[in-house]
Amino acid sequence: MPRLQALYPRWLIQPHSRTALEQHALIIRENRIHDILPAAAARVQYQDADAVSLPEHALLPGLINLHCHAAMTLLRGYADDLVLMDWLQQHIWPAEARHVSDEFVFDGTQLAITELIAGGVTCTNDMYFHHDAVARAAIDAHYRMVVGCSILEFPTPYASDADAYISKALTCRDQFAGEQLVSFTLAPHAPYTVSDATFRRVITLADELGMGIHCHIHETQDEIAGSLNEHGVRPLERLARLGLLGSQLVAAHMVHVTDAEMDLLARHGVSVAHNPASNLKLASGFAPVAALQRHGVNVGLGTDGAASNNKLDLFADLRLAALLAKATDHNPTALPAWDALQMATNNGAAALGLQDQIGSLLPGLQADVIAVSLAASGAQPCYDPVSQLVYATDRSQVSDVWIAGRRVFAEHQHTGPIATRALAAAQRWQARIIANRDAADRTIA
Amino acid sequence: MPRLQALYPRWLIQPHSRTALEQHALIIRENRIHDILPAAAARVQYQDADAVSLPEHALLPGLINLHCHAAMTLLRGYADDLVLMDWLQQHIWPAEARHVSDEFVFDGTQLAITELIAGGVTCTNDMYFHHDAVARAAIDAHYRMVVGCSILEFPTPYASDADAYISKALTCRDQFAGEQLVSFTLAPHAPYTVSDATFRRVITLADELGMGIHCHIHETQDEIAGSLNEHGVRPLERLARLGLLGSQLVAAHMVHVTDAEMDLLARHGVSVAHNPASNLKLASGFAPVAALQRHGVNVGLGTDGAASNNKLDLFADLRLAALLAKATDHNPTALPAWDALQMATNNGAAALGLQDQIGSLLPGLQADVIAVSLAASGAQPCYDPVSQLVYATDRSQVSDVWIAGRRVFAEHQHTGPIATRALAAAQRWQARIIANRDAADRTIA
Repeated sequence: MPRLQALYPRWLIQPHSRTALEQHALIIRENRIHDILPAAAARVQYQDADAVSLPEHALLPGLINLHCHAAMTLLRGYADDLVLMDWLQQHIWPAEARHVSDEFVFDGTQLAITELIAGGVTCTNDMYFHHDAVARAAIDAHYRMVVGCSILEFPTPYASDADAYISKALTCRDQFAGEQLVSFTLAPHAPYTVSDATFRRVITLADELGMGIHCHIHETQDEIAGSLNEHGVRPLERLARLGLLGSQLVAAHMVHVTDAEMDLLARHGVSVAHNPASNLKLASGFAPVAALQRHGVNVGLGTDGAASNNKLDLFADLRLAALLAKATDHNPTALPAWDALQMATNNGAAALGLQDQIGSLLPGLQADVIAVSLAASGAQPCYDPVSQLVYATDRSQVSDVWIAGRRVFAEHQHTGPIATRALAAAQRWQARIIANRDAADRTIA
Repeated sequence: MPRLQALYPRWLIQPHSRTALEQHALIIRENRIHDILPAAAARVQYQDADAVSLPEHALLPGLINLHCHAAMTLLRGYADDLVLMDWLQQHIWPAEARHVSDEFVFDGTQLAITELIAGGVTCTNDMYFHHDAVARAAIDAHYRMVVGCSILEFPTPYASDADAYISKALTCRDQFAGEQLVSFTLAPHAPYTVSDATFRRVITLADELGMGIHCHIHETQDEIAGSLNEHGVRPLERLARLGLLGSQLVAAHMVHVTDAEMDLLARHGVSVAHNPASNLKLASGFAPVAALQRHGVNVGLGTDGAASNNKLDLFADLRLAALLAKATDHNPTALPAWDALQMATNNGAAALGLQDQIGSLLPGLQADVIAVSLAASGAQPCYDPVSQLVYATDRSQVSDVWIAGRRVFAEHQHTGPIATRALAAAQRWQARIIANRDAADRTIA
């Protein structure tokens, strides 16, 4: 029998049932949660297990980041405080065109994973290019990654047209078949960058292959105006007509949405990835999260990429989402603590079709588990651990992280070599990117 | 000659002039900044000083928290996700009525100071009762506190009527005359809890004694509706007629404000304390910070109390303010990084009339200085230290804090006994408050 791990936290948080157990133990066997039982019983029944004492900690499922562009972490803070199109066209896209490569994506994704693990995020729904590098970076770091394979009509250094993007996506999916920690989605970038024909092809493939779809939808008012102009309908209506809406779809942002559209999303089982920090920073607007939930839409939480956030800090964005929903809804009881915590855990799992694998703490689920210390001055007194986790927790309180049963972060330190290597790579890329930017500036001047 | 301290950071941030110096040293002599000069020159000229090496750090002035109720930290997370009046009348006020005392305020204020120092906040503009205990807590912890002496018309266990509150405020101010780290303001609670006669008396006293005034103004729509009903004018108009508006006034919140009111504030030199987290959590609304600044109003940043935030994390609220201003203003260039950093530093100093003492790094100013490590994975790469400080910094990156030249936090640890003592007190109070709440619940049931 393989060695068991027995975790003894002060609180054990189960988002799926909104339960905070006290003085219970969680037993990990190989990659799964094997048992949850009173601590006293566990000390007898599992006395030979490797015990981890967490006396001031809440144990909870690892957070799930439902929308990210991990590799863009290498462009964190590269260009801020700009209008969206200026930001993209004058800064981000030129930098990407110059630098994005397998090496850039591997290094950027591992830098992101380093940050994500240290902040208690054990699964990320990504969207970027060079899917092979994203997958290798995740497997190497023992990280759970849903690799979104971007699909566009226009050429980038990665691919020439929609067919080429799709072909690379499918090749990559085959290449990593059987890997436990990575899976793949088709990620048509957005309604304004993908044609009807390509959306139809994506729908057919996703259906045949049982793949999820990940797409930016209704992020800005401009996107909606453009669609009305070009297609005569709002983007969601166009996508509905094409047959894109369904439980396989994660719609990122969904900032601007009517009541009828919320009903449409709910009826089709579409999940929304709410990205509060990015929506504010780019002035996209205030997503009506509480209203979406009232309409029955499943809403998860995302950081978006570090070029528009600028940190992959899901605890910060969990607090932000819970605070923002109240003011947006003119209602201080909107998105209470348990609802917010569900957004960042089991709602995200459901959005990815992984609710039988991750998103709560239950025997049989994957052992994606984090421990959060509530002993710091900023977390005391503690009348309610869930209130504390949502409204008063810094990610620096995350002390331990298990992914598929492996302890990848222990007592505030990465257990593998990832952090040292990723930080060294970040410095190399920074030097290279600055040198190129300065050269470009000199050329212009 | 007293021993000098020589700090050698990677970057030295001067908010007043929006300058980020590289490879410079800051010299502290007693309680003041004695010199700022290139590091190479400092190594020769100040070779006998106690050197502090900060090779991956940004050095900046301590952040200034322009609106807080520090003692309420003992009620952190005591009641969340409630409508304002239910929250106040059913939970917060009954708990305060039962527990608030000199001991509660001393312990709660020291718990807040523990958290504030660890998060790089070196000066707090407070508002609460038992001013004597607030002042003693600050002096004991070597913390810079502007003690706001609350004034109400109605009785609390602390005082019976407005005259009694005022009398206690003045007695307390006399008692601590000559203390370097504490000063006192008159804090009429809000337009809806203070009469015209009392406001007039406050104005006269503040004028005679050169005291600042700290007041909640235009926090909610209800407050404005109530004033229109009772006084026939909006609160700000009423206060303007009474003569309250002037550079001695810090108006906390100011969420709902017309263009004409912004002009009025600017013309009178009133400062606004912006509390983004509390305004969201209580669903008060979105303060138009960028518009206030365009009208020329000085805006600083506050956490509000931990009962409505729930953490006294000014780095988190600095990021929140910078993000939120963009969406509120429908403009992603609103409140860029330098503007946001100024809000949390020298704007706060100006609001308190302390711009010649604190709020930037300049020879002659008080040595209220913090060091922030930018080495973590969440802070790399670093193209611009100011972008990083505003958009991508956790308060856990604060490594060192000096207040009036004394290093109160060194290498992520409090140098004095405050943390241990405050945490023990927090646990005692938590047990007592829970026991009383449960007893009250039993009485009701």
